[in-house]
Amino acid sequence: MADNKKLVSEITSMDEDFTQWYTDVCIKADLVSYSNIKGCMVIKPAGYAIWELIQKHLDARFKETGVQNAYLPLFIPESLLQKEKDHVEGFAPEVAWVTHGGLEPLTERYCVRPTSETLFCDYYKGEIHSYKDLPQVLNQWCSVVRWEKETRPFLRSREFLWQEGHTAHATMEEAEERTQQMLNVYADFLENDMAIPVVKGRKTDKEKFAGAEATYTVEALMHDGRALQSATSHNFGDGFAKAFGIQYAGKDNQLHYVCQTSWGLTTRTIGAMIMVHGDNSGLVVPPKIAPVQVVVIPIQQKKEGVLDAAYNIAKSLSDYRVKTDDTDRTPGFKFAEQEMRGIPVRVEIGPKDLEAGKCVLVRRDTREKIECAISDVSAKVGELLDTIQKDMFERAKKHLAEHTFEAHNKEEFAEAFKETKGFVKAMWCGCRECEEKVKEEFNATSRCIPFEQEKLSDTCVMCGKPATKMVYWGRAY
Amino acid sequence: MADNKKLVSEITSMDEDFTQWYTDVCIKADLVSYSNIKGCMVIKPAGYAIWELIQKHLDARFKETGVQNAYLPLFIPESLLQKEKDHVEGFAPEVAWVTHGGLEPLTERYCVRPTSETLFCDYYKGEIHSYKDLPQVLNQWCSVVRWEKETRPFLRSREFLWQEGHTAHATMEEAEERTQQMLNVYADFLENDMAIPVVKGRKTDKEKFAGAEATYTVEALMHDGRALQSATSHNFGDGFAKAFGIQYAGKDNQLHYVCQTSWGLTTRTIGAMIMVHGDNSGLVVPPKIAPVQVVVIPIQQKKEGVLDAAYNIAKSLSDYRVKTDDTDRTPGFKFAEQEMRGIPVRVEIGPKDLEAGKCVLVRRDTREKIECAISDVSAKVGELLDTIQKDMFERAKKHLAEHTFEAHNKEEFAEAFKETKGFVKAMWCGCRECEEKVKEEFNATSRCIPFEQEKLSDTCVMCGKPATKMVYWGRAY
Repeated sequence: MADNKKLVSEITSMDEDFTQWYTDVCIKADLVSYSNIKGCMVIKPAGYAIWELIQKHLDARFKETGVQNAYLPLFIPESLLQKEKDHVEGFAPEVAWVTHGGLEPLTERYCVRPTSETLFCDYYKGEIHSYKDLPQVLNQWCSVVRWEKETRPFLRSREFLWQEGHTAHATMEEAEERTQQMLNVYADFLENDMAIPVVKGRKTDKEKFAGAEATYTVEALMHDGRALQSATSHNFGDGFAKAFGIQYAGKDNQLHYVCQTSWGLTTRTIGAMIMVHGDNSGLVVPPKIAPVQVVVIPIQQKKEGVLDAAYNIAKSLSDYRVKTDDTDRTPGFKFAEQEMRGIPVRVEIGPKDLEAGKCVLVRRDTREKIECAISDVSAKVGELLDTIQKDMFERAKKHLAEHTFEAHNKEEFAEAFKETKGFVKAMWCGCRECEEKVKEEFNATSRCIPFEQEKLSDTCVMCGKPATKMVYWGRAY
Repeated sequence: MADNKKLVSEITSMDEDFTQWYTDVCIKADLVSYSNIKGCMVIKPAGYAIWELIQKHLDARFKETGVQNAYLPLFIPESLLQKEKDHVEGFAPEVAWVTHGGLEPLTERYCVRPTSETLFCDYYKGEIHSYKDLPQVLNQWCSVVRWEKETRPFLRSREFLWQEGHTAHATMEEAEERTQQMLNVYADFLENDMAIPVVKGRKTDKEKFAGAEATYTVEALMHDGRALQSATSHNFGDGFAKAFGIQYAGKDNQLHYVCQTSWGLTTRTIGAMIMVHGDNSGLVVPPKIAPVQVVVIPIQQKKEGVLDAAYNIAKSLSDYRVKTDDTDRTPGFKFAEQEMRGIPVRVEIGPKDLEAGKCVLVRRDTREKIECAISDVSAKVGELLDTIQKDMFERAKKHLAEHTFEAHNKEEFAEAFKETKGFVKAMWCGCRECEEKVKEEFNATSRCIPFEQEKLSDTCVMCGKPATKMVYWGRAY
């Protein structure tokens, strides 16, 4: 009964109120639940199962590039956080502070890690002595805490799950190579597994990570035209190494500072998936990261042979993540649930189909119905999952292309930001002042300086001075 | 050089100083590193890779029994922790308190979860309305914090990794069934994957979990004769449900309280593995959870063909977790490292072997050397890994049997505890007073009331009153 009420009540239309649509989908697809801990969410089984598949795919890609996993402490002593000046300025205002352990006050307060650069530096200082100890290429899967004021499921919460990679290298070149390598890993993962096309580029100095020399980003475009920073990769140069004293004896027998990187992707990716692929019936999950890829739904399941046929079809689909919905709810309810949860394919099998040796496959993304001989179902579902994965990416790519605009001067730039439609490409002089003006006048930010540069005009659209770069601008989550 | 120094210096002998041996192995096998955060450790890649395999095996077993993973917040508001009286008494003295978020003091302080019963209760209260919402069978993999005074790597640290399962059921019978089911999952995992034999039983009221009606435990015996509680499973009855008001409408249309369980296994299991299987050369890792199962070590690797042969052997072993050590260190050093890290099998291949079409397999556990045709190496290594896994379990079982003693009266009981030799089985009257006296007089505790009861005598070894149960007693970690 409780179930029924929940699903029958429709979700808000995304065209009417995108924000409310997003929240409705998060709740009604059973991904999260609000907890009584302000700003923190409960990730429910249906949401966590997606995160597990994200972890699996991404972790395999990491390990192929030589990454090893480790685990560092949850706490950072205040003095450690303060060692790198820019870094502490960036993070100290938004951390949670532990002041008591057991019944006693701590002599020095600890923050709950908002990110672990300082901890990895402290660790590397003890581990790295010689060039033979390099490179160090570690990653950890954990949760971090940032005391956000406004929170939304997956997009911004006081605690979130992520992976953070931290590496140390002998040279700046090697650090730069790793920084870009990991950005490419993210782009490849997002495009091929999540079916989310991205723009790769470098953050401006204003937008880069606290303490980084260079921050690279993969930016995705949501259905409502807003940008979402989907993963970042930072090159720290030797800044942290100097602050923490991490040196190694080189082949030349001299002491050198190491060069470091870090790179991360969070549960926010689930938010991106919702907002890139979802529709007015709920989630649409790309097959590669769908916890259930196929659901078999019997029609008139009390009729002789139907339920057995459903089980047999499910059995023949055991190469995929398959489920049979044999509950006593109506087929209509089951269809709605499959759609809400974004299960890529449903197989309908009723008495008439059974007689004809057939069943019906229904794609979640297009709702296309495909008749299929029961004996062909495994091969057909396999094909269909591949097709859906590909089509979802192509559709998202088309949306990205159609919502990327060019502005050659300030008028066009202003026009492009009259409503939030997408990315706006425009030339920039390179100064922070113009970036701040864009924020002020258009409530937009620089998303990245894309690796693929174009020359749209000679001058900065804001100040008219000579342009140095083309920038992707947008309104962000 | 740094490497060399580390390995050449020998570890303390376990017979001389078991505690120091344990610490030496943890450090020299590169499992952990002490961090600058007092009482917290860094789990290094070699240690974390073991934890990843533990997670993989255990999680698969969980999922077979219908467990779903989820993620609940890191923080517990003080008022929530206080809702169940026994529970708060058990945990409040040992938690870390967060008092500030960002720059502002919190209106209510939060503790960092020491365990999540209260959070799951709070969540279940919102999720459970009808009998149709039951059972709820969730688990999370996370870290928890308990502000311990004395800490040791893996065995006791202020932060540790674990899984905690939390379930809610319609009836007490179902909760009891789940509690025992999960204990059996742990026992099966420990015995078959970790090669650690365990005694299954129930904790006495004195030793049970804060808030539980019944706590079940799997107790293992370390090489030095100390007991280690390796996993526990708790039946809460409806105690938490009453404290938190978790009720459901039954088929009878009446409101009922749910019955709950929780169960957990921690990174302490790695400590158990070290102390059950390790020897004076370092770790001995059971093949099923060994991150590297086989290392191929070329001898005189500069001689023509040797390195290629080593690579080819490794290639033929790709069904296993295999590594080739082609570094320029000496074979002796490589052997010592393989032993220190507990890699189950090493394959030695030198110019003479190559000429004869042979190689030498060396078992880590027994050091037995086995000649093997290069063409047979894959089949032979497969067999050998199975044999090692089985033999390690049998040896540990023999050790357990030989170090489990019976005491029929107080004299025998006292004799058995003159030194720490192992478990002591003895009859008990059932009263807490006698348990406290055992602690006082012999510095030992009741480990469990084993499911397999025997009648050793009619009276309690401590007070002489009629005995109700046979108990395993021991000195514990």
